[in-house]
Amino acid sequence: MDKVVGFKDVAATEKFAEASPDVVSAILSEAGKMCEEVMAPLQRPGDLHPARLENGILRTSPGYADGWKAIAEGGWIGMSGDPEYGGMGLPMTVTTAVNEMMSAACLSLQLAPLMSQGQIEALEHHASEELKALYLPKLMSGEWSGTMNLTEPQAGSDVGALTSRAEPNGDGTYSLTGQKIYISWGDNDFCENVCHLVLARLPDGAPGTKGISLFLVPKYIPDENGNPGVANDLKVVSLEHKMGLHGSPTCVMQYDGARGWLVGQEHKGMAAMFTMMNNARLGVGGQGVGAAEGAYQHALAYALERKQGKTPSGTIIDHADVRRMLMDMRADLFAARGIMLANAAAIDMAKATGNADWAARAALLTPICKAFGTQTGMRVSETGLQVHGGMGYIEETGAAQYYRDVRVTAIYEGTNGIQAMDLVGRKMMDGGEAAARLLDEIEDHAERARATVPELAGPVWEATETLREATEWLAAQEDMNNRFAGAVAYLNAFARVLGAHYHLIAALADPDGPRAKLARYYITARLPEYAGLLDQAQIGAKDLFALSADELAA
Amino acid sequence: MDKVVGFKDVAATEKFAEASPDVVSAILSEAGKMCEEVMAPLQRPGDLHPARLENGILRTSPGYADGWKAIAEGGWIGMSGDPEYGGMGLPMTVTTAVNEMMSAACLSLQLAPLMSQGQIEALEHHASEELKALYLPKLMSGEWSGTMNLTEPQAGSDVGALTSRAEPNGDGTYSLTGQKIYISWGDNDFCENVCHLVLARLPDGAPGTKGISLFLVPKYIPDENGNPGVANDLKVVSLEHKMGLHGSPTCVMQYDGARGWLVGQEHKGMAAMFTMMNNARLGVGGQGVGAAEGAYQHALAYALERKQGKTPSGTIIDHADVRRMLMDMRADLFAARGIMLANAAAIDMAKATGNADWAARAALLTPICKAFGTQTGMRVSETGLQVHGGMGYIEETGAAQYYRDVRVTAIYEGTNGIQAMDLVGRKMMDGGEAAARLLDEIEDHAERARATVPELAGPVWEATETLREATEWLAAQEDMNNRFAGAVAYLNAFARVLGAHYHLIAALADPDGPRAKLARYYITARLPEYAGLLDQAQIGAKDLFALSADELAA
Repeated sequence: MDKVVGFKDVAATEKFAEASPDVVSAILSEAGKMCEEVMAPLQRPGDLHPARLENGILRTSPGYADGWKAIAEGGWIGMSGDPEYGGMGLPMTVTTAVNEMMSAACLSLQLAPLMSQGQIEALEHHASEELKALYLPKLMSGEWSGTMNLTEPQAGSDVGALTSRAEPNGDGTYSLTGQKIYISWGDNDFCENVCHLVLARLPDGAPGTKGISLFLVPKYIPDENGNPGVANDLKVVSLEHKMGLHGSPTCVMQYDGARGWLVGQEHKGMAAMFTMMNNARLGVGGQGVGAAEGAYQHALAYALERKQGKTPSGTIIDHADVRRMLMDMRADLFAARGIMLANAAAIDMAKATGNADWAARAALLTPICKAFGTQTGMRVSETGLQVHGGMGYIEETGAAQYYRDVRVTAIYEGTNGIQAMDLVGRKMMDGGEAAARLLDEIEDHAERARATVPELAGPVWEATETLREATEWLAAQEDMNNRFAGAVAYLNAFARVLGAHYHLIAALADPDGPRAKLARYYITARLPEYAGLLDQAQIGAKDLFALSADELAA
Repeated sequence: MDKVVGFKDVAATEKFAEASPDVVSAILSEAGKMCEEVMAPLQRPGDLHPARLENGILRTSPGYADGWKAIAEGGWIGMSGDPEYGGMGLPMTVTTAVNEMMSAACLSLQLAPLMSQGQIEALEHHASEELKALYLPKLMSGEWSGTMNLTEPQAGSDVGALTSRAEPNGDGTYSLTGQKIYISWGDNDFCENVCHLVLARLPDGAPGTKGISLFLVPKYIPDENGNPGVANDLKVVSLEHKMGLHGSPTCVMQYDGARGWLVGQEHKGMAAMFTMMNNARLGVGGQGVGAAEGAYQHALAYALERKQGKTPSGTIIDHADVRRMLMDMRADLFAARGIMLANAAAIDMAKATGNADWAARAALLTPICKAFGTQTGMRVSETGLQVHGGMGYIEETGAAQYYRDVRVTAIYEGTNGIQAMDLVGRKMMDGGEAAARLLDEIEDHAERARATVPELAGPVWEATETLREATEWLAAQEDMNNRFAGAVAYLNAFARVLGAHYHLIAALADPDGPRAKLARYYITARLPEYAGLLDQAQIGAKDLFALSADELAA
């Protein structure tokens, strides 16, 4: 963390002065212990015994209530929360590292504190002082939990199509009516209260995204002492039957004139959501990295133990293709983690320094972190399953669960396609300036590295230059479909180059050590796909739309 | 089929003279009807109601017995079987196309006839006349079914480690004892008899693969009239709980002195298995292609129907990234299907002409067909799920089932890693000659295509030339680990180039038609990854083994 993504710069700021190496190390070690002892044992029970709805009461998986309690009592929910309201005020970099560890241990339970963290972030930025004083301490302590309510059956990627309504009650509160779907942890049986952030339209709200407002809608309406009072007019209608992440209840929520409080300004709900979503996207990228780490460790343990064929060790780890799979997994994991931590560090630097360049850096890295992190989760868990051979397909082994669980991370919080469109669209509204600044840094670093590891630095410099050309080509396209046609390939190529950059930094820090060997493998074997991806990134819309819908179906 | 993989050459042989275009067209149309009306409706019930074991009796999924009956009565099991024993004697190309259709409709049921076909093939080549006369007609008619028993707990990819024993009974039969695992369709409740082909070692069998023999071991021992008589000493011990393919029972089989008949010569069991495995690998590659086709059609239907965002049609099919996903799926499907049919056609030509070059062609294409076909199944079903957005993760939608079901095809019948090692090992024992012959053909064709579609022919020629260099590099490596290190990447690059070749043939046949547009997309957007893959293919073992096992775990 220190060497690769510049965390020492974060710790050197006044704001995060308390995050000394010793403190951070102690925190990560404590989190690791909790993950191993409390969360990891909940991974399989959550899969076997999904959350369920009994007469309208949500029953969570066995042991999850204790798991939540341990997470809450460890302070892991409010790690980066404002100390004024009970948070620890730690850098997002540290929170991100801990979130990754929790994801590796038990993804479906980890999603619950991640949702609360997102809500805490949104309320800190946009809620009134009264709401903050009432809700934030409860959310950070884990007495209450938080959710996000965006999607409706007809409004997924197109949030602006939502039809949930909010009517002013005349007393400063609002009545919310509508149905929301895909609400992760929409209810539980271990918190006193569940607080929903709900997007809805006021009577005078314009159509589309510009007429949307954000509301805080608690399951129980707080009484004058701030304790859960009467039940609000909302309920969980049903739970989804998903391919994985069974321990995390995915709810259909019904609001029937439920009382809510405005967060931020009227009709400015999307702006508030975007603050929250950027950090939630970092969080979901971290879920992908965490699941990949879990799958890697799981596969490595199997490879070290499984006897098959004549090898020096007698186990399959000495087979070239098993080794290749483990190296692919580990090298990509390092790359994805580097991007994730650099993203978090940029958020911290923006917060600590107020420098807009850092905010632009964080904004640029977020879609890459989310899409590449979750894609790495998919690929690494796929490879981890493959390392197990036939055993991987048997559920008892656990490899298949990583594969099933992580699959949703490429979809929720904005599909990976949406992330790529964000990267070549919104994040290039500066003409590609923030991207160019980052590429300059990578090339400068590669230039400096030439003296020590020329055979690694050269390919990184060349890849970066090719990425720069593609970036300029994309930024120059006025027809957005020309950008969108190659967006996913471009994002993946960008991630490949960024990953090489972090590998190169690690190699430079210890040119003869194992990290340099891993870097060599990544740069030799994993980086080269950037070129083919950048070819695809620049195909433009014409060939893509060459077939009519009828021809696609023929 | 005619234009792309040279099926007209197959139909022009004396052996397959009856497979005229009209006949083949009628067969495919009839198969399509059966798949749609009978098999597709069994896809989801099989997932929801897995096969189960009740007091030792195997109960198959609802409707599967009727499904099997329809497959058997249609003659789809013995399509390529010898007419002397009740088969239709059709080319493997036709059988492969029908198997693909059945895989698209219901993969878990389709695996049952595929197993019987493998057994039929093995018996035709290696069994005595008596065994053939008794078993083949029953297997082809579907009255009886067949299985393959290779794997034991300690002997998976390393078949030579098996410990199942066979003792001669003195009457020409043998007593088999041992446990076999991962036996697909090890039993069912819709056939009179289940015939197991079992690998075991005779008392004088050498250790390793050279001391293995192959036996036919029926569930019920045939009486003097060839009808199922007394129960044999074998049983299904348990069923595996798998991530997918729930409708296909995966059995642990126990043999306790079960009576068996030798197939082929003593100690030559592996040779017999290899005959069968080569064709079974083509069949599994076809499962991948079929599952991909099912997933593609399913995703396309959703994209044509799902309203979201402002697009010309009002549905998501007009979004660039959705279109990109559909084009990726379709272009890769065409490539994988081309390889599969070319593989089948080579088998037919070898059979019809006795020309060893055709046999070498088939042997070369088999691992590529198996690995790339199943990888395409994985990727296309992953993308199909993604097209559905959040709905894709909900089991009711059906997209997740394609993704879960097809995953095992990359593992069974030799993992895709094993296929790649076969390609760079056994299939290059000729010094790369068979590969070079194929690359010559591709380059010759690309040269001829330059006059009509130069912008497509050029990249195909260049890619082939780069593949040739990598082939020569690999074939020259005496340290097998240098080949194995890059084997999977090499196989994938080879498949990319082959796919481009079949696309180019299709484009040339109709340079302004939709197939040419699809070819243009494939060659522009999908082919270019070959270069990065070929870089990885030539990394050698040194960088791969640079990290110790301890360093991998650190």
